[in-house]
Parts: sequence; C-alpha cells; structure tokens
Amino acid sequence: MITEHKTADVNFESLLRIFTVPEGPDSTLTQIEEKLSRNLNEFLRDHIVAEEKPLRDIEKDFSNATIPEKPEFVSDHTQHLLDTLVSQSVHTSAPSFIGHMTSALPYFLMPLSKIMIALNQNLVKIETSKAFTPLERQVLGMLHRLIYGRDDSFYAQWMHSANHSLGAFCSGGTIANITALWVARNNALKAQGDFQGVEKEGLFKAMKHYGYEGLAVLVSERGHYSLKKAADVLGIGQEGLVAVKTDNQNRICPQALAQRITELKANNIKPFAVIGVAGTTETGNIDPLQAIAKVCQQENCHFHVDAAWGGATLMSNNYRHLLAGVELADSVTIDAHKQLYIPMGAGMVLFKQPDAMKSIEHHAQYILRKGSKDLGSHTLEGSRSGMAMLVYAAMHIISRPGYELLIDQSIDKANYFANLIGQQEDFELVSQPELCLLTYRYVPQRAQNALEKAQGEHRVTLNELINELTKFIQKRQRETGKSFVSRTRLNPAKWDHLNTIVFRVVLANPLTGCDILNHILQQQREIAQQAPKLMAQINHTVEQIFSADNSV
Amino acid sequence: MITEHKTADVNFESLLRIFTVPEGPDSTLTQIEEKLSRNLNEFLRDHIVAEEKPLRDIEKDFSNATIPEKPEFVSDHTQHLLDTLVSQSVHTSAPSFIGHMTSALPYFLMPLSKIMIALNQNLVKIETSKAFTPLERQVLGMLHRLIYGRDDSFYAQWMHSANHSLGAFCSGGTIANITALWVARNNALKAQGDFQGVEKEGLFKAMKHYGYEGLAVLVSERGHYSLKKAADVLGIGQEGLVAVKTDNQNRICPQALAQRITELKANNIKPFAVIGVAGTTETGNIDPLQAIAKVCQQENCHFHVDAAWGGATLMSNNYRHLLAGVELADSVTIDAHKQLYIPMGAGMVLFKQPDAMKSIEHHAQYILRKGSKDLGSHTLEGSRSGMAMLVYAAMHIISRPGYELLIDQSIDKANYFANLIGQQEDFELVSQPELCLLTYRYVPQRAQNALEKAQGEHRVTLNELINELTKFIQKRQRETGKSFVSRTRLNPAKWDHLNTIVFRVVLANPLTGCDILNHILQQQREIAQQAPKLMAQINHTVEQIFSADNSV
Repeated sequence: MITEHKTADVNFESLLRIFTVPEGPDSTLTQIEEKLSRNLNEFLRDHIVAEEKPLRDIEKDFSNATIPEKPEFVSDHTQHLLDTLVSQSVHTSAPSFIGHMTSALPYFLMPLSKIMIALNQNLVKIETSKAFTPLERQVLGMLHRLIYGRDDSFYAQWMHSANHSLGAFCSGGTIANITALWVARNNALKAQGDFQGVEKEGLFKAMKHYGYEGLAVLVSERGHYSLKKAADVLGIGQEGLVAVKTDNQNRICPQALAQRITELKANNIKPFAVIGVAGTTETGNIDPLQAIAKVCQQENCHFHVDAAWGGATLMSNNYRHLLAGVELADSVTIDAHKQLYIPMGAGMVLFKQPDAMKSIEHHAQYILRKGSKDLGSHTLEGSRSGMAMLVYAAMHIISRPGYELLIDQSIDKANYFANLIGQQEDFELVSQPELCLLTYRYVPQRAQNALEKAQGEHRVTLNELINELTKFIQKRQRETGKSFVSRTRLNPAKWDHLNTIVFRVVLANPLTGCDILNHILQQQREIAQQAPKLMAQINHTVEQIFSADNSV
Repeated sequence: MITEHKTADVNFESLLRIFTVPEGPDSTLTQIEEKLSRNLNEFLRDHIVAEEKPLRDIEKDFSNATIPEKPEFVSDHTQHLLDTLVSQSVHTSAPSFIGHMTSALPYFLMPLSKIMIALNQNLVKIETSKAFTPLERQVLGMLHRLIYGRDDSFYAQWMHSANHSLGAFCSGGTIANITALWVARNNALKAQGDFQGVEKEGLFKAMKHYGYEGLAVLVSERGHYSLKKAADVLGIGQEGLVAVKTDNQNRICPQALAQRITELKANNIKPFAVIGVAGTTETGNIDPLQAIAKVCQQENCHFHVDAAWGGATLMSNNYRHLLAGVELADSVTIDAHKQLYIPMGAGMVLFKQPDAMKSIEHHAQYILRKGSKDLGSHTLEGSRSGMAMLVYAAMHIISRPGYELLIDQSIDKANYFANLIGQQEDFELVSQPELCLLTYRYVPQRAQNALEKAQGEHRVTLNELINELTKFIQKRQRETGKSFVSRTRLNPAKWDHLNTIVFRVVLANPLTGCDILNHILQQQREIAQQAPKLMAQINHTVEQIFSADNSV
C-alpha cells in the first residue's frame, strides 16, 4: 500500500533492517563494544593515539560538507570512526591527565547509559517520560536536601507538587546559572500595580516602571566566564556583571562587595543578585558564603551559589564545612558531570523556595497544561534526555559515604601534591589547594631568588620569561600525549599582581596515584631543559638582577 | 601516603573497583545489556508494563529525598531500575505509539552511544575534545549545505575558521531558537557611535540609544511555545512575541504579517525578527517561507526558520520543495533527535552568514582564547557531550538517499492514513497532512450531520460534548498501553473556530505499518462505546438539533 521508493543502493527493506536487526555478534561494532565493556582503559589506551597530531591535519578528515549520497556499512564506518575520531580524541579518563574537570567514570554507568539511550525518553513532559519524571524530581529533591537539609515533611509536600519545583535538571552549569539569574531577574522585576512583570512586558518597560537606570549582578573577579554570557543573554549587559575584588586566596572581599553595592545604588543601578563561587574554576577556592549571605539579606538581593564544580564536596561530612553558608543561598548550581562522576551533560540548579521558579513558569495547550507535573514548565530547555537516571543510579550504588571517600581522597591527594611541590627547590606552588585543585609553576631555584630580589622592570622581564617557559612546558607535555596539566593566568599578590602563567591541576580522578604526580614533576623538569634558549635568557636575566643587586 | 578513610560498608579499594573492574559477563547488568543489544524491541516489550499505573503510585517509588547511606550492589540496583523505572517508562519506539515526535532508533546508534559516553569528551574546547571539534564543525557544515547549498570553496573557507561559525550544536530546538533570537537581538542593537552594543550595555541602554519603545518578534499563531520562553529570557517580554493570523492551513498570512509590522513600527516598536515555522508542532504545516523572506528583506528583519521538526524534509529531493525559501533565512533550527532518528539531545541552529554569531562571541582567559577554534566561544551552553558523533555516523550509514526514503515513506503513510480516515463515516479528518503529521477525531456520522446543520449554541454544545468524547478516547487508549495518539486543541475554520479537541498523529516511525493504523481507528471506535453516558448526551443533543431543524 505504501509506495516503495527506489534509490541507488538504498531500499526500504534494507533501511528497515537498521531499526529491527541488531548488529551480529561478530560485527566490528559489537566486537569493539565488547572490548570497551571488558576493559575500557585498555580500549582507550589502544585506540587513542598518544602522539599529538596537529589540528590542521585532523581537520582534513572532517572537511567534506556534503551529506553522503552512498550509504556505508556499519562495520566500515565504525572502523573509520576508530581511525579518524577515537584515535584523535582526548583520553579524559587517563590517570595522568590531571588538567581537566573531566575524570574517569564508574564502569556501571556505561551499560546504564546504553539503556537510558535505548529508552529514548523525553523529560519535557510525562507523556514521553512517565516514571522518569518522578525520578528526576527525586534526584532534584536529593540534591536539595544535601544543600538545604529540610525535613521529610518538606519533601513529602513539595518534591512531587505539580505547581512547584525544587530546581531544574539541565545540560550543564551554564544553563543552570542562566536559569538561576533568569529567576532572580524576573523576581526582582515582578508584576506590580499596572505593570505585569518583566516576563510579560520586557526589560525596557520593567526598568521604566521601577525607575532603575541599570541592573547589576555581583561576583568575584574569579567568577566563571559563563556569567558574562548570562548577563548578555538576559539583557542585563556584560557591564552589569560587576567584578568584586578578591583577597590573596581568590575569595571575594565581603566589604568590597558591600561597598560596590552602595556605589551601584547611588547610581540608581539595582543590584538584584550576588553570586558566591564555591570552587573557582582556576584555583578551586570557595567564597565566604555566610558573609555574602549577610550582605544579600541586608540588601534584599538574590543569593546564588555557583557550586558547579565544588558542590559535590557537600557529600563529605569531613569537608562540607568548607561550603558553610550554602544553605543560605536562594539558588545553587551543581554539575553532576564534574565531581559526581556522571557522563557529560548533567547540570542542576536548586532553589531554596519551592515557589521560586513561578516567575519563569510557562504553559502551552498541547503540553505542559496547567496542573500537570510536566518538568518542562520550569526548564529553560525543552526536550531533554533521561540523564537524571544516571545520577539516581550513582547515588544508590556509590552512596553518600562512597562519594565522601572519593571527595576526601581527592583533597588528600591535592594536599600531598602541594607538599611534594613545596619540597622541590625548582617548583613554586602558586595557589594552595582548598579542594582538589592547585596551581604551580617550574622556576629554577636561582630564578626564584632573583624574582624575589628583583624590582620593577627586572622583575617583570624575568616573570615574563618564566611565563614563556611555563607555556612551553605545558604545550610540550601535552604533545607527548603521556600526561596533561592545563594552564591559566593568575595575578598573585606575592608577585605584585603580575600576570603569572601557571600549571593548573585537578585531582578528581581516583585512578591518579602518587607515583604519577612525582613523574609529572620530573617530566616538567626535563622538558624545561628542552628550551635551552629560553633557559639561557632566564639565566642571563637572573645574573643581571644579581649583579645589579651587588652594584648597589 | 594517601589517607585511607573507612566508613561502614564502603572502602576505597572497593570504590576503586567500580572505576577499574567491569561488570562480569554473568552480572545482571551485563545480561540485561546483552538482551537489549540482541533485541531491543523484545526487551522493551518484556520490560515496559503495558497497563498504565497512576502517576501517584509511581511517585511512591521515588519519594525518598535522602541520598542513601548504604551502597547498593550494581546487580540489585539494576533489578530495582528494571522494576520501578524501566517498567513504568514510555515505549517511545513502539510502532503503535504514534503520538510523539520521538520514534524508533537505528540499532547501530546504541553501541555508538556507549562509545561516545565512554570517551566522555567535552566539546566546549579542543583541549577536551580534539577531533570531536572538527567533526562537529563538519556536521554543522553538512546541515548548512543541506539548507543553503553553498559551494565547496565556501565550506573550505569557513567550516573550520577559528573566528567564524556556521552554527551551534545544542541540546535541543529551544536552545537553538533562543540562540538564533539572541544573535538577531544583538545584531539589531549593535554598537553604534558611543554605544557599545546591547551585549555590553544591556537592553535598557540599547533601547534608549536607538530610541525604540519596544522590540518585537513575529511568528504565526501556531509558533512553538518555546518562543515565549525565548522572548522572556532575552528581555523582550512575552508581549513582544507577536502572533500573526494564519490561513485555513495553519500557515501565516504574509499580508497580515506585513500589516502587523507596519502597526508595530507606527508605535515605535522595532520588529527585529520574523520566525517562519517549517512544520508546526500541532499540525505539521509549513509557512510560506519565500513570502516571509520578502517581507523580512523589505523590513530589514532577521528571518529565522523554526524547522526543528520539519527540517529533515530537506533530505528528500521529492519533498524539499515544501520548504522552498528556507535558503533565504538568516538562521534555521533543526533537531536531529526528531526526524533524523538520533537519540534525545541533538539540536542545531545554522546561520547563513559565517560571521552572524560574532554578536554573541565570548572569550575567557583559560579557555576559548581568541583565535582558538574552541566551539564554546559561540554556544549558549558551556560543557557539552559529543552527540554530534551520532549525527555524523547516521549521515554516513543512512546517507541522504536513505533519509529521503524514510521521509518519503512517512509522508506517504500519513496520506494513506488521511485517506483511510476519510473513508470512515464516523471519523473526521481535521487537518490534512502536509508532512507526516495529521489530526482527526471520532464523530458518529449522525453527529457530523447535526454539527453541520446546527448553529449558535446548539453547535457549541454538541462540539463540547464531542471534545469530551475525544479526550475520553485518547486517555483510555493511552491507559490500555497498546497504542497512543496525542491530543491537542485546534480552532478549525470549518467549525467557526470553535475550540476543537483532536487526536494528533505523527507517522515518523518506519516500523508503523498500515495494519496498525486500521487497528487504531477500530480501537477508538470501540472505546467510544465505553462512554455510554457521554454517547447518550451526544445522541440527545443531535436529536434536539434535528427536531429544532424540523420545527422551523
């Protein structure tokens, strides 16, 4: 009855087969999948090429913008993917790759992911997700309780309430932060008298109604770059994201915060939200959350905590005190794909008050009808996968004490590494670990002494040369394909806030042993010797500094 | 060296094992995964319980907000997931579940998904994704070419250019639409003279600088609900989303569009974007894109096409003419997780001009450095998974002619079903399929005649009763768990634009055969008889109408 179209090499019967007939047990794809299931680390070691290939060369394999006119066999294409894509991907779970926030994953999550994908639920509404909807609400409830610690009756009342939401599950920390600031903005500019609220009438009318000249969100200088994006997209403008001074530990100065708010208000600019950072991306430090909460209460500001990375620390009863005050926040961002060891794409934002998200609630005729429990009425995203299932499973299989161990050993390891660096004469620890993140650099001992002695231009020159060396070491180490630390730029008080390039290390991978840490330092020391010209320049400058000193 | 923490039932060695030792071949999880790999449809049939359980009961299984203090064995937890979650999930790939835009998936995507998740790349930057970055750029290039058909030299120049982007890969159509409107807003309110652009100074100052009283985005009454969200989040306000009248085929009226623009401008409101819908969610109709493009050119508006669902039609040389004019759009949204048969979470927005996204470009110190090819400098989201790999693989394995067949057979099937409905005396086809989506309802023949005869209140009463019946049938059919059509509310011209509840059917699943369509109608007819009271009311009203008619 249905017309059969015929095209070269493609017919409807063979096409139906890809939907009904699985790959055979001997097929390339099945065998590759089995190898991966038997031993993921071996699979990655065997298939990811260690030596770095220039991006320009990799791009040649991905240069054809035409959608193929001829179908490929699954086995052929799988081999092609192994050769061109997998081989040139990044070994994010390698124990010696300690430069990312992406770590190894528990094995059980791989088959569970496959089940999740095969079920192909759409969490936007119950009709396409059913039990996944209460499951996601429970996961949000668990995280809410981890942060706010409300009692059973609170969760019995609100967790599954149709018109309330304890938070939103989303693709990542950026969308979580945008959601939090969206809620905060709409609550700050809500309906009043004839004005129907910013969500209805828009920002221009809202500003005129409230008589503000501008809006501001305050965060420390160490806030995540995504907040600028949030300020842009929400119509506040990047200038509305006000950077507040930090202390020597990269933590926001509460007095400076209060002062900036006073200044803004004097200029008729409304500071509607303050963001506390719980785990800065570059140094892993945590803002004094209690002090920020106090300022927010006084100033009637929304208090958001960006704990995308550090939030998992709440799982450890030994370290959760580091985030003291987080329970005072109006909203908190946590990424489960960071220190909760879930695959990429599991962000969450939690709200203290179950009705906070009312200001962004939306409904439609054929979906998200009023009174329905559809999750989509409180999310920025529409269609979404059932990722929450993986968080749910990990919570049950690892359990809170298991996460505690993982968190504790990460922090212990960072402290071990900080001590190790401290013991080396030719390394400088730049930021102490507060969580499992630290920064350091390679500086030959005599250069360290010279840097301390030097003043003005001499110091700047020497520091710049050391920056060049740090960049060189980091790139070369990455290119060998055996280990990886990332790099960033800091402005340490110790060095007059000079631009200082540092190695950045995140020690969340439980497979990273102390031997690897020792080895990484040794390798960096050796790589430094592969830049004889730069080393000679450093030595020359060092000697200049000492001779200038002697001549005084 | 690293302290060993001890907690009841959890120790670091057993914890390490979940990262290093795979599930054994006899483990529950491995066996379940194997069963799923051998025969997905059987697995889903066996494990998803057909009979509907009330949501309230399902919620009881997901009511504990405490993160467990005791770890569970993987096998135990897997069984728990099967019993409580999988059993109560939605069989989205069942051939008789024709109410969603979610369909069956090709088998090869399941093992590939597992590989993708095991690699755990983060596409925000090259450092954590390497070859995945050029791959994603190629996928965007392929979709760009499918829409805009530029030549080889165009893609050679722009596809891998560091400071350009042909589009953005994202979690879904909502983020894609928001991204398009974000770009359009920022381009409409760009830097000029002393004004540094809306992205820097925010919407309030932008409006004052340009002297506008408001902003507007125009779309037909049938536009997707997510656009309201977009208008809210971007600070335009939901009132700024102006609904334009549609014709009897649910297509925007270009004259009405031009007139609305004139009215807005007369009120000093800036219409900065018009959205053409290519596949309305409720009826699957396509706006006259060429006519909209003409209006946009005249008015200097950004022209966006929301082809989240219908965009895949471009794969068919037999039907791509239905979207004629899409190549004139400044930006286009396409969801690969709809008619490109990719798992949930694969949205895309494409931009005609390679420099269009400059207005939302952003950089940071430790990532997305200027001149880098990091994808994250042009996406709303930050961390993202390697989903693009699945689109890439499907393009190669299915190929364009394969997709053409899939699209063609879907449309053919919809036409077949429309004819079938037309042949039944007791069914009314409410919207003709243009793509593979149609709407209809069950109305006993005498009631149809009465509805045509009736006027005023009689017609309203009868129509309301039929609405009740449609709702009843749809719910009851869903509850039996054997088949599923969705429902929505339309206002057909034929019935004086009365609120009319209809069954909504999407025929994208290649496994749905004609026998199933016949059976679904038969079942609906039978279910109607299970509402004797409602049927009696309908009959009573019908007789009233005829007797009133006779008495005239």
